[in-house]
Amino acid sequence: MSVYLDHNATTAPAPEAVAAMLHALEVAWANPSSTHEPGQQARRLLAEARSRVATFLGCQPSELVFTSGATEANHTAVHAALAATRGIGRQRLVLSSVEHPGLMALAARLEAEGVPVTRLPVDADGRVDLAAAREAIGADVALVSVMGANNETGVLMPVAELAELAHAAGARMHVDATQLAGKAALDFAALGADLMSVSAHKLHGPKGVGALVVRKGFALAPLLAGRQERHRRGGTENLPGIAGFAAACDRAAATPAADIERIAALRDRLEASCATLPGVQVYGRRVARVANTCCLRFGTLDAELVLGRLERADVVASSGAACAAGGTQPSHVLLAMGEPSAHARAALRFSLGRDSTDAHVQQALAAVHAAVAPLLQDAVAAACP
Amino acid sequence: MSVYLDHNATTAPAPEAVAAMLHALEVAWANPSSTHEPGQQARRLLAEARSRVATFLGCQPSELVFTSGATEANHTAVHAALAATRGIGRQRLVLSSVEHPGLMALAARLEAEGVPVTRLPVDADGRVDLAAAREAIGADVALVSVMGANNETGVLMPVAELAELAHAAGARMHVDATQLAGKAALDFAALGADLMSVSAHKLHGPKGVGALVVRKGFALAPLLAGRQERHRRGGTENLPGIAGFAAACDRAAATPAADIERIAALRDRLEASCATLPGVQVYGRRVARVANTCCLRFGTLDAELVLGRLERADVVASSGAACAAGGTQPSHVLLAMGEPSAHARAALRFSLGRDSTDAHVQQALAAVHAAVAPLLQDAVAAACP
Repeated sequence: MSVYLDHNATTAPAPEAVAAMLHALEVAWANPSSTHEPGQQARRLLAEARSRVATFLGCQPSELVFTSGATEANHTAVHAALAATRGIGRQRLVLSSVEHPGLMALAARLEAEGVPVTRLPVDADGRVDLAAAREAIGADVALVSVMGANNETGVLMPVAELAELAHAAGARMHVDATQLAGKAALDFAALGADLMSVSAHKLHGPKGVGALVVRKGFALAPLLAGRQERHRRGGTENLPGIAGFAAACDRAAATPAADIERIAALRDRLEASCATLPGVQVYGRRVARVANTCCLRFGTLDAELVLGRLERADVVASSGAACAAGGTQPSHVLLAMGEPSAHARAALRFSLGRDSTDAHVQQALAAVHAAVAPLLQDAVAAACP
Repeated sequence: MSVYLDHNATTAPAPEAVAAMLHALEVAWANPSSTHEPGQQARRLLAEARSRVATFLGCQPSELVFTSGATEANHTAVHAALAATRGIGRQRLVLSSVEHPGLMALAARLEAEGVPVTRLPVDADGRVDLAAAREAIGADVALVSVMGANNETGVLMPVAELAELAHAAGARMHVDATQLAGKAALDFAALGADLMSVSAHKLHGPKGVGALVVRKGFALAPLLAGRQERHRRGGTENLPGIAGFAAACDRAAATPAADIERIAALRDRLEASCATLPGVQVYGRRVARVANTCCLRFGTLDAELVLGRLERADVVASSGAACAAGGTQPSHVLLAMGEPSAHARAALRFSLGRDSTDAHVQQALAAVHAAVAPLLQDAVAAACP
């Protein structure tokens, strides 16, 4: 396998997660809603998995609603917040302008249906502009929704400050913690949010499962109606996925904090060496970021060109979000940071993970210096003949 | 393991499905939206799985939208049908009164939000009343939604007739085929529906994955916004689940029709022998049913009592839907069929599967005759002293 530096897109399921899934597929495969013993065995496994995921996320088991992933969790959060304040003149949705494409698309749809939406600007480092937030978050706001860490830049958002603003205005606060979980300490109880989304496959769990954490006391209106998850999410529980998610959480919880420092050191080394090349710009470097993410551009070299060169040297990275990849649009995140299109089209993302090693970074740097640097020098030479 | 006669609740994942999942978890774990080679490898696996599931369901690959299961597929169908006709005075939802609890709950919520809802009555055999349907399906109807086969009784619904009525009125037709897939020939192209939901875990695939089939030409408004599935379902694709689903479809497609006849014969034998006991009533026996389902009551013996006796003899069945199990309400399906509460509370369901054998039926019948029959005779004796 190539050197994989695209952990923000997805991660390899941990062997522990795969083993837990196999158990659920081969042994505890009954329906957890069935009252017979096989069903109750599945139900116990579900309860036990719930308690382990809750421990990892810093919430109560009863606050945890399993979903099919972060996209469904985000949609449920927005749906429920708007449902809770329907008819009392509090329907505005406030989100940052650098949210995940799925949430941006939901906001656009709601706006077309008449829901007032405010997209908060970010500064040049990609952090939400708190002055704009202060102005926008008023008595008509149902929900403030922001990422914990941006998927493209890794920049941490001012969640505590936004939560305070939201609560002072009587609004609810949702954090999409998809890119935080497993990369930084995560404690729902301390976060100040009312709702929090996470996804298993970003932390070496399986695809197809995630969770919405719902602060005790908030009677969540389900997006998918049904009796499961205490009437908060209908549909037969994805027990193999949930069991794999729990195993991935256990593993993440057991990983020493030093490993996050190790990843940060690798990222910093990769970044510092790239930055010695002419015309390299690193995004979000001046502010707090998660440990694993490096977003940069090599001058105005097209990202696809650079990625192709790297991949021929067996190093895999990406241009921004996988969920937007393949599209021809420059990253909405970098545009929101005030970058011109030509810069945004040049941006690429290295995202490291628990399985990244010194050797990986060395191979990536060798590829950058051997295959990308000459292009960059040509470009500089062409610009200054 | 006990004799499992609860296949309508869920089925054991087939070894082929588990193997396909393992491959996706261990090898093709990249994000199918990533443009790099590992991502494209995952994308090819996704395309190949889509084509196999489409073949099994009798639709085009492009008509197939993978979801987290039938509940999400049902919700998406209703959401999209209402979205497509919003603002043109066509917002009524027509469904049968014996739909799945999740869909019934969605209809109740929509009704509370102002969407007009008609619940079609069923006859004593549990089939939708076509005269009532003819009356209800008019120019204000957005969607007619009905199960292909009822989950509790196995009774087949008059889908073709309802589709004709829906289309004549300019409405769309949705079929929840969750209990049809794998139990009867299923051909979306021939079904006459515009939308069809299926779930993998009812046909020996994994939990957490299903599909909505969307007839070509219907621009489906997604319930979960995002760029995946041609903008029809956001969220990173659950590739392990989808790969397992495809393997389960292959297996179902390869099973000879004779095996369905074998299951029908086992079901009939079980049913006929139960029916020799005093006070036994079999539901839906006079009309067409799927091959595997037997819904009956032993007089007015409480279903939980009977199920407990059977389970002590290592035979596992259920009282109605798992999604309603554990509740204290009698089955809404049997109530809709005109049964009094005392009968509905006595109803239980044996649902057989591909892995059911002669020996299983023999053991089930031995348990019925040894452990249930005496209770029934006592009850009869008490009633006629």
